[in-house]
Amino acid sequence: MIKFAKEEYQSRVQKVKEKMEERGVEVLLITDPANMNYLTGYNAWSFYVHQMVAVMVDEVEPIWIGRFMDAIAARKTAWLDYDNILAYSDKYVQSDVRHPMDYVTDVLKDKGKENKSIAVEMDNYYFTAQCYESLKSGLPNAKFQDAKGLVNWVRIIKSDTEIEFMKRAGKIMEKGMGDAIKYLNTGVRKCDMAAEIYRSFTSGTEEFGGDYASIVPLMPTGVDAGACHLTWTDEEYKDGDIVIFELAGCYQRYHSPMSRTISLGKPSKKLKDTVEITIEGLNKVLDFIKPGVTAEEAEAVWADNLKKYDLFKESRIGYSTGLNYPPDWGEHTISLRPGDKTVLKPNMTIHVIPGMYYEDFGVEISEAIRVTETGCETLADFERKLFIK
Amino acid sequence: MIKFAKEEYQSRVQKVKEKMEERGVEVLLITDPANMNYLTGYNAWSFYVHQMVAVMVDEVEPIWIGRFMDAIAARKTAWLDYDNILAYSDKYVQSDVRHPMDYVTDVLKDKGKENKSIAVEMDNYYFTAQCYESLKSGLPNAKFQDAKGLVNWVRIIKSDTEIEFMKRAGKIMEKGMGDAIKYLNTGVRKCDMAAEIYRSFTSGTEEFGGDYASIVPLMPTGVDAGACHLTWTDEEYKDGDIVIFELAGCYQRYHSPMSRTISLGKPSKKLKDTVEITIEGLNKVLDFIKPGVTAEEAEAVWADNLKKYDLFKESRIGYSTGLNYPPDWGEHTISLRPGDKTVLKPNMTIHVIPGMYYEDFGVEISEAIRVTETGCETLADFERKLFIK
Repeated sequence: MIKFAKEEYQSRVQKVKEKMEERGVEVLLITDPANMNYLTGYNAWSFYVHQMVAVMVDEVEPIWIGRFMDAIAARKTAWLDYDNILAYSDKYVQSDVRHPMDYVTDVLKDKGKENKSIAVEMDNYYFTAQCYESLKSGLPNAKFQDAKGLVNWVRIIKSDTEIEFMKRAGKIMEKGMGDAIKYLNTGVRKCDMAAEIYRSFTSGTEEFGGDYASIVPLMPTGVDAGACHLTWTDEEYKDGDIVIFELAGCYQRYHSPMSRTISLGKPSKKLKDTVEITIEGLNKVLDFIKPGVTAEEAEAVWADNLKKYDLFKESRIGYSTGLNYPPDWGEHTISLRPGDKTVLKPNMTIHVIPGMYYEDFGVEISEAIRVTETGCETLADFERKLFIK
Repeated sequence: MIKFAKEEYQSRVQKVKEKMEERGVEVLLITDPANMNYLTGYNAWSFYVHQMVAVMVDEVEPIWIGRFMDAIAARKTAWLDYDNILAYSDKYVQSDVRHPMDYVTDVLKDKGKENKSIAVEMDNYYFTAQCYESLKSGLPNAKFQDAKGLVNWVRIIKSDTEIEFMKRAGKIMEKGMGDAIKYLNTGVRKCDMAAEIYRSFTSGTEEFGGDYASIVPLMPTGVDAGACHLTWTDEEYKDGDIVIFELAGCYQRYHSPMSRTISLGKPSKKLKDTVEITIEGLNKVLDFIKPGVTAEEAEAVWADNLKKYDLFKESRIGYSTGLNYPPDWGEHTISLRPGDKTVLKPNMTIHVIPGMYYEDFGVEISEAIRVTETGCETLADFERKLFIK
């Protein structure tokens, strides 16, 4: 069940070790499930209990540490030697008297790492405040530092195989968005609409089966269309509704997100104008993006265009995407916004999403793109317009 | 879009304040999305950025703090006065130079809380090590303590409305598991099977539309059936496969989980025997559970029964369930295992899941139950047997 060649995993580990040496890190404790997957292939819905991958500069292979019952999945999905898959007993799970990091502490002591320079992913969902306190208390002589973004920035340039996975996700996206818009209609319950979206995206195409996206279907509607992270209710769509779909095709944990806006019935002038301005700005950004330009320069193209209409968008217009697990398909590296001076390079992949959000109204039209040698290309090919049904 | 009566939310807040006073907590910062929803009704997929609900013993209403674009959803889904919905600008999102907890620090200072006794959810997914460090650094004179389980233990006894929501989830569960077993067959791709599960559970019943479950369909198969947290691939089911479905009906964020095991083709003696032992033990546990018995006593009934067969299960056989968000539908309070001396009471709701996991084989047959005045009842009504197709 291992997805990439062992050599690709090993080369990823090597790049991470180089970053570790640059930062003076001897032991890297990774709790981000996407980073764990990236380095080992490990893939299971077990991140609701504590787990990690530890990379040590002086050991060839990383080690996986997790719950006893999940070690079975680790042996099946990770390329690691079974000796490097270590598991804690169930008595550590959600306990008031012991913490899984106590077990990790014991492992690191056994390996003679108690005085080392240890980096932890300080702002990752799956590295809680208690994880850090337990580690510090168990390893009082270790020197801790933040590994923020260390693996994420290695992931920022995708390999050709990763790009191929994302293009497959793009194919699933094209099919899924088409099915969604086809099914959408006045009188359809929103939960049935969500059901159809799940059906189409999870089934995928004949060639490429779908995986679960790291975010559920976002489908704010009508006067709630500006509340961009709403999901659905059992209410029916009604004539005049604005419907936003923010969705992602997913193939083997690699995402290709996209959003589109649909009008049920005749669109208002405000809606048509906002869609037109959004598409115009999005097109200008996509025309501008190429290797060598920075993230903030790309955002400025959007912001300058908005200014023509005396409009302003408060939030970033894009972020790096690719491999991920819930709750996010963003990679927490590049943001297209003022101040982000990241220079774009070939095989970076970005969800460009200049959503326009208001208290009673909203528009989203977005594209996931790959930076090419000379510009950029979308991962999915889907008409960029206001859909009217 | 508010789901419960304002009075129910207010009574929940009141109970939380009583716990706060018992523990000497003046300010409670809640980052668990389920706890946020429980106290305010807030419901959106926005927990991939930092957000919280703050309860102060001397203020009537809690306050919601989150990202600017998500304040729109807060105004639509929470019962709070709009003045109690506070939002930080997008420049705090996934930034290298500032953290959303810096904004929270400013809010608490404005409210004169910088010297107070502040409790934080130390081991919650959405309270990272960095959240804690940023708060401590911004509020050096505050006294911090762990709010672990504070709200979760208030949630442990469900109200009648919550039980009604969970029974609706149980109806969705019955329909969904039925549809899943009907669709399952040799030659079906696993991704298409997952698509059908999503379709049925999300659509729900005619009366009750489905919500997304906090865990995706778990469906380990064949020699991987013991790797209980595997999802799916695009491979086809084949004759002789053991198939496990661990799924949940979900209604308005309330879950009713269940698992069943299916044999594609003639089951082996080992499979039949393991299923028989599992059902026998599960039945004994369900017969035993009633108000007044403890969590560990319920587990002992299972363990004693296994001993007859010279078998042993390493992991807990159940946990409290109900309201939740990804990555877990467990509530992180009761565990049915040795050492858990929680006395069971009416309207506690527990997923009793005595899964048997081996390297090349596995069985799961589970029930979500409500403790009644005299015993317990399952939330869904579904035949407890080995299904053969």
